[in-house]
Amino acid sequence: MTVDDEELARIDAYWRAADYLSVGQIYLMANPLLREPLRPEHVKPRLLGHWGTSPGLNLCYAHLNRVIEARELDMIMVVGPGHGGPAAVANAWLEGTYTEVYPHVTRDARGMERLFRQFSFPGGVPSHVAPETPGSIHEGGELGYSLAHAYGAAFDNPDLVVACVVGDGESETGPLAASWHSTKFVDPVSDGAVLPILHLNGYKIAGPTIPARIPEDELLRLLEGYGHRPIVVAGDDPVTVHRALAAALDDALDDIAAIQRRARVDGDTTRRRWPMIVLRTPKGWTGPREVDGLPVEGTWRAHQVPVTGVRTNPEHLGLLEDWLRSYRPDELFDADGVPVPELRELPPSGSRRMSASPHANGGLLLRDLELPDFHAYTVDVKEPGTATSEATRVLGALLRDVIAANPDDFRIMGPDETASNRLQAVFDVTDRAWNAARLAGDDHLATHGRVMEVLSEHLCQGWLEGYLLTGRHGLFNCYEAFIHIVDAMFNQHAKWLETSRRIPWRRPVASLNYLLTSHVWRQDHNGFSHQDPGFLDIVMNKSPEVVRVYLPPDANTLLSVADHCLRSRDYVNVIVAGKQPALTYLTAEQAVAHCTRGLGTFDWACNDDGDDPDVVMACAGDIPTLETLAAVALLREHLPELKVRVVNVVDLMRLQPDTEHPHGLPDREFDTLFTTDKPIIFAFHGYPWLIHRLTYRRHGHHNLHVRGYKEQGTTTTPFDMVMLNDLDRYHLVMDAIDRVDGLETRAAHLRQRMADERLRARAHTREHGEDPAAVRDWTWPEAGR
Amino acid sequence: MTVDDEELARIDAYWRAADYLSVGQIYLMANPLLREPLRPEHVKPRLLGHWGTSPGLNLCYAHLNRVIEARELDMIMVVGPGHGGPAAVANAWLEGTYTEVYPHVTRDARGMERLFRQFSFPGGVPSHVAPETPGSIHEGGELGYSLAHAYGAAFDNPDLVVACVVGDGESETGPLAASWHSTKFVDPVSDGAVLPILHLNGYKIAGPTIPARIPEDELLRLLEGYGHRPIVVAGDDPVTVHRALAAALDDALDDIAAIQRRARVDGDTTRRRWPMIVLRTPKGWTGPREVDGLPVEGTWRAHQVPVTGVRTNPEHLGLLEDWLRSYRPDELFDADGVPVPELRELPPSGSRRMSASPHANGGLLLRDLELPDFHAYTVDVKEPGTATSEATRVLGALLRDVIAANPDDFRIMGPDETASNRLQAVFDVTDRAWNAARLAGDDHLATHGRVMEVLSEHLCQGWLEGYLLTGRHGLFNCYEAFIHIVDAMFNQHAKWLETSRRIPWRRPVASLNYLLTSHVWRQDHNGFSHQDPGFLDIVMNKSPEVVRVYLPPDANTLLSVADHCLRSRDYVNVIVAGKQPALTYLTAEQAVAHCTRGLGTFDWACNDDGDDPDVVMACAGDIPTLETLAAVALLREHLPELKVRVVNVVDLMRLQPDTEHPHGLPDREFDTLFTTDKPIIFAFHGYPWLIHRLTYRRHGHHNLHVRGYKEQGTTTTPFDMVMLNDLDRYHLVMDAIDRVDGLETRAAHLRQRMADERLRARAHTREHGEDPAAVRDWTWPEAGR
Repeated sequence: MTVDDEELARIDAYWRAADYLSVGQIYLMANPLLREPLRPEHVKPRLLGHWGTSPGLNLCYAHLNRVIEARELDMIMVVGPGHGGPAAVANAWLEGTYTEVYPHVTRDARGMERLFRQFSFPGGVPSHVAPETPGSIHEGGELGYSLAHAYGAAFDNPDLVVACVVGDGESETGPLAASWHSTKFVDPVSDGAVLPILHLNGYKIAGPTIPARIPEDELLRLLEGYGHRPIVVAGDDPVTVHRALAAALDDALDDIAAIQRRARVDGDTTRRRWPMIVLRTPKGWTGPREVDGLPVEGTWRAHQVPVTGVRTNPEHLGLLEDWLRSYRPDELFDADGVPVPELRELPPSGSRRMSASPHANGGLLLRDLELPDFHAYTVDVKEPGTATSEATRVLGALLRDVIAANPDDFRIMGPDETASNRLQAVFDVTDRAWNAARLAGDDHLATHGRVMEVLSEHLCQGWLEGYLLTGRHGLFNCYEAFIHIVDAMFNQHAKWLETSRRIPWRRPVASLNYLLTSHVWRQDHNGFSHQDPGFLDIVMNKSPEVVRVYLPPDANTLLSVADHCLRSRDYVNVIVAGKQPALTYLTAEQAVAHCTRGLGTFDWACNDDGDDPDVVMACAGDIPTLETLAAVALLREHLPELKVRVVNVVDLMRLQPDTEHPHGLPDREFDTLFTTDKPIIFAFHGYPWLIHRLTYRRHGHHNLHVRGYKEQGTTTTPFDMVMLNDLDRYHLVMDAIDRVDGLETRAAHLRQRMADERLRARAHTREHGEDPAAVRDWTWPEAGR
Repeated sequence: MTVDDEELARIDAYWRAADYLSVGQIYLMANPLLREPLRPEHVKPRLLGHWGTSPGLNLCYAHLNRVIEARELDMIMVVGPGHGGPAAVANAWLEGTYTEVYPHVTRDARGMERLFRQFSFPGGVPSHVAPETPGSIHEGGELGYSLAHAYGAAFDNPDLVVACVVGDGESETGPLAASWHSTKFVDPVSDGAVLPILHLNGYKIAGPTIPARIPEDELLRLLEGYGHRPIVVAGDDPVTVHRALAAALDDALDDIAAIQRRARVDGDTTRRRWPMIVLRTPKGWTGPREVDGLPVEGTWRAHQVPVTGVRTNPEHLGLLEDWLRSYRPDELFDADGVPVPELRELPPSGSRRMSASPHANGGLLLRDLELPDFHAYTVDVKEPGTATSEATRVLGALLRDVIAANPDDFRIMGPDETASNRLQAVFDVTDRAWNAARLAGDDHLATHGRVMEVLSEHLCQGWLEGYLLTGRHGLFNCYEAFIHIVDAMFNQHAKWLETSRRIPWRRPVASLNYLLTSHVWRQDHNGFSHQDPGFLDIVMNKSPEVVRVYLPPDANTLLSVADHCLRSRDYVNVIVAGKQPALTYLTAEQAVAHCTRGLGTFDWACNDDGDDPDVVMACAGDIPTLETLAAVALLREHLPELKVRVVNVVDLMRLQPDTEHPHGLPDREFDTLFTTDKPIIFAFHGYPWLIHRLTYRRHGHHNLHVRGYKEQGTTTTPFDMVMLNDLDRYHLVMDAIDRVDGLETRAAHLRQRMADERLRARAHTREHGEDPAAVRDWTWPEAGR
């Protein structure tokens, strides 16, 4: 395929138009078409935005539009240099999409003025590519995730090509550096293709970038080593670059088509080096060459606003006007400010426009998951607290059948821990996605695996975000402590959801579901470095509209919670659950009722007969629930006259007032459950302060005493771990004795005995290397039933 | 240099000894030398640990010892596959270091039994390489940071070689993938060398690894692209591998010496491809080939404990005994269990032993920083709240002189934001470290720069950790929101410090100092994605012994805080400060006094004359302080009879009770300052819940009303930002009116006026794109002085 000069001239005009609109957004609040000489009052008082990356993005957009048309492609573009918000907005407006979703921003002079004015303006749109930007699944702010998002979008979208512009600044980040290896996880049959465009404009904020300053040979080796065939396009002469970029795109897309044909028609799915483009053009290309005697175009000075004194310095004003007029706006827009017909005709139409692709508004494509009835997977609970089950293993069976029933829109991500987290039933029906070499003896590797394991939490998260935002479903299973690796990514995704919910044309997407297991209390192999339940604290900072935290105490409650989360939309659901054999408490029916309420009493464990209790023993999390029940059994055995109420919390958000969170329990109900005047001993899975933070407004808060993880740990036995943090049954009994009026003397003997039991347990573990059998084999006593 | 077979045989014996000791740690609690047949009761009841990576680490250690001796090298080893704790411990014991620091673990049979028993045992040592492990600066738990730590250790240590074993699992992580690019930041004159050893044993927990399963040509291109010259050593026959590895190490170290000679003697500092080793040997090499009919050696099944049924299954017991005896312990240890003389003689002696290197216990080498008197940098404050200053720019001058006075042990790290964060004075005396290509017009790039900028927070953090743990000083300046990128790394470093403080032989190191700026309230260019003050919530979860948080309200307080932090040891100090022009309040002397107390009244702003106030207006952070003072001015103007006390908090930890944190304010002092019965309106920099979490035990807590960032934001004006979050002066006045008894009616008019002012301000920004001049130019009124 060759591209004639006439077509290239049209592309160039389109590029100029997009550049003009980009500069206009950064600078102008009036006189958008320069129909009169530029005056200071046409310029915004605060100049905010990033010019540097914009012309490169506009160039890519214009050229991608050509190939979409020529090849009838289904394509979206991920804009890694997200500071190029003006570019993405400009193209959406040129394509007409912007006016379709924001009708007041018409595609004419009046709309153009609004487009310009609203950019980075109070009450307007953000300066980055953001949820507000049509065609985007990728916020440009915190850099590093574009390529992972692009692959996430391409998985299970066999007809989609995801163009992904990677900034050379972004390419220095760790997550981006790892993302190139996604090439080893692509199924050329059932997945689409990613076309990375590494844009070397040479500079980040103030300094040069690594890939732009290593010899080209070294850069090409790097990219080849990542599994790519790089095609270099370089220059600063538009005509030359247009020609080279058009040819490079044709080369790359021919190659992608050939790889896919070989796999899909000939059945050869061997991994090939996927094509990619290295585009080397000046930063702030076509902007001012020099300002105040200093070079700007092609340097780091072009990063943000290249000419800043426009409202006060006539010379700067002149520079800006010359710059804007250099795009020849009169050739690009008609008398009414409407793009001239040849510009309007250049981009694809309808949903082929990248700014209007339903893939970039994934809720449009979202189908409900086929979910089997989870009651079929529940474990039999004859008596509470007598038999054990590995909660995540039980969940594994459900997930197995979810995978089987949803073969092309559900994936499980995890850093090589799916089996370690006891979800291995999924391997009855699927494999780990893998398109690198395979050897005899490998365990469940296949090109089309539904389980994606890579030792990079960043990749797991980034892939899943891209997958969800393009309208599919998934689950990320992870060691609890190491989910902190993606704190920042979680923050950004939660912000995306918070914002998207306020944008009418964005359709709801499937929730991002975390299953955190191998948790703080059972890191027998791994110790202190693996003990950190603080992700919940991060999650709670985000808008209550989008975050949910669940701590199911046993297998059946985990099933019920998981079923709920897999059906939900637009949330981040965090489920913390154990993988070790643990007591089961609730039948299927009870589990559903308990999870529906989100918290409630374990009636079989209470002896307050619904009356006023003397003490409330509360718990959240599997290990805290176990220790609380063991403490309650001790209390009931040794202080039978003490009225104990046991409250278990599954849905952490219930603890907040209903004024703070949609799941919040009304004060009256909270007071009834927890009392306003009786001591509450709360055994919590995570850092204890979180419970105080959630309940500080509650009437009974001054009676609340929380035990949790207080940063004490090592490789030791499970019971030693709870003892190290004063969360053990004996200490909970002591806490109750210390806080119930009048017990101090009456139960002094029991208190001493509890203290002795702790010493005995510690001595036992230090001698034998394991917990005393009475602790290990504890079950809820028959007398308490 | 050639290595004869006799020497290789000695190395092999040493390797076998280390392997024997590694297996012993995982399995045995008695009969350490197998002087009697192995019986079930010799074996620990809970088998915890990781065998898979251990033989490879032992192999590297033995061979590195040879070259240390042969070349009189100063070397440490960073153990990336940190699950190989048994290997690091085994070598430290063989070298005698273990007994020197833990005298009860003697280098004989009795000590060996203790060594074995304590491993992953209650009251013993963790299963990973950890602070407890002599010779380590790198916790093995959360993977990804080994290479960044290695480079951090090598910077400004010209005579040091840091061998860094990178696991092939770890190599999949983002931070590790980015770390290879550290080659572009090494000064071959004043920095030492890093020798990466990429150990391909092929598997992570359950699956293969990417670098082990791409064609070798592709892997070599990747490593060459990163700037290395890889030397491959591969095999599963010990003799062959010993020969090849010895030759490869000689090749690599010759090359390192040549590069350094060329730079140091010939003055040619051009970047060269640094040598590295690719070591491909089986996972769990020399362990059981097969267990229960399934292959183990060389597969993922060798990851943890390869034979597990030892106490109950006689066949497994036999396998273990055969495995242990395969190392021929009788040849390695004498009748008393002491390593035979030829083993004792093999490793280097004294501080040349990698396990005893002072570099790996950096406090031994730590020198105090030469700190200029910070009073020389303070700004003149004639009247509080009338003149402005950019706080970080003022700090920049101090940092400039710190750099000048400490040319070889102080560095500033940051993701390309040093100038953006207004610290550019440092470029008067130094440059950005850079050893890639340079072009005319580049801004302050030099091989020996003291400022390290890379668009990877992971690298900044990892480098700095390695630098600090080897006994130097530094500062990490970062956009506040994006410090979350290193939440997990912060967690691990804080845990390292927490543990180290309890280990007598670990000497204190310089604190890790964060300067968080470009903060949530002033993200004019960037908007919502750049707004997240939640790092403080993460920090507060760690042990109070090691974390400190400071929110200096102006330039002089920032100087005082920074001076304090730069002198401190073994902490993580977080300083949050603004970079925009902001009012100054305190003279140098007042600033010192205020920061010493950590919190206190702004007397000039109070009108309670030290008596009981009607309301306490509290604040922490520069913007909250500004808004609080503006609110107080309004209150004093319109309600002159209202007694207002203004409390400013610099040291956030002062808010906690003294039972919770060493900086905690005693209850009595807290009550005096904040009262127990008057409303407290607290304007906070971060998420408001943090203040509740810190103060929920305080008597006056029920009167506390906190305003902070509640996840509302976009690209807008500064005042619109505080209005979006109800932290603005008008809302604070309304809050006071709502909460002071009796004001409801009396001040109804003022309350309405405040509400109107908010509407007016919002309308103004939406029309003009900037804040009303009265807000922008506000200063503390003369009447209030």
